[in-house]
Amino acid sequence: MSTIPSAECPDLPEPPYYAVIFSSVRSGDDRGYVAMAARMVTLARAQPGFLGIETVREGQVGITVSYWRDLGSIAAWKAHAEHAIAQRLGHERWYERYEVRVARVERAYSMGK
Amino acid sequence: MSTIPSAECPDLPEPPYYAVIFSSVRSGDDRGYVAMAARMVTLARAQPGFLGIETVREGQVGITVSYWRDLGSIAAWKAHAEHAIAQRLGHERWYERYEVRVARVERAYSMGK
Repeated sequence: MSTIPSAECPDLPEPPYYAVIFSSVRSGDDRGYVAMAARMVTLARAQPGFLGIETVREGQVGITVSYWRDLGSIAAWKAHAEHAIAQRLGHERWYERYEVRVARVERAYSMGK
Repeated sequence: MSTIPSAECPDLPEPPYYAVIFSSVRSGDDRGYVAMAARMVTLARAQPGFLGIETVREGQVGITVSYWRDLGSIAAWKAHAEHAIAQRLGHERWYERYEVRVARVERAYSMGK
């Protein structure tokens, strides 16, 4: 649900926080996709509880992980009116299949040179 | 930590289960990487508690999510002798940076046409 070209390796607070793992296979029907995906990233960033996003796409396949402060923030974003339209178009047009997993991040560590 | 070319959208059991989200930026030093990454996927699949893996790479940036039955399976895999060598080489050679997040998947839903 994003077009930013690469993972940001966002700096996040200490766990716990929440991740939404969105794994998708695109349908090949891209009408309206790029503009909507960019809009959704902009909009997500403005939501209360949004912490960060990283996304990678390889051909038709993508993984986007967005990070949120709590389940309430995720529920509010899922119910957002504009996002609901995007979800419906995603379902009907842009994706061949997708899976969404909501997960509580319990531990995190990183290496940066 | 993988070279399979696309997300598998693995069929997983009902939550709860665990996800390891591995976000990486490669260094450009690929010596030995491809063989090791393929070996690690083969080895991971053989571990007790392994449920599935999906990985996407776009240039130097990648997101790999592996799924596990419980935290014990993840700890055992992290401590596996061959995997420990791969982790050390990853740290020293293959990755410019990476972040690892261990998360408990609480909810999942999918759409497949």
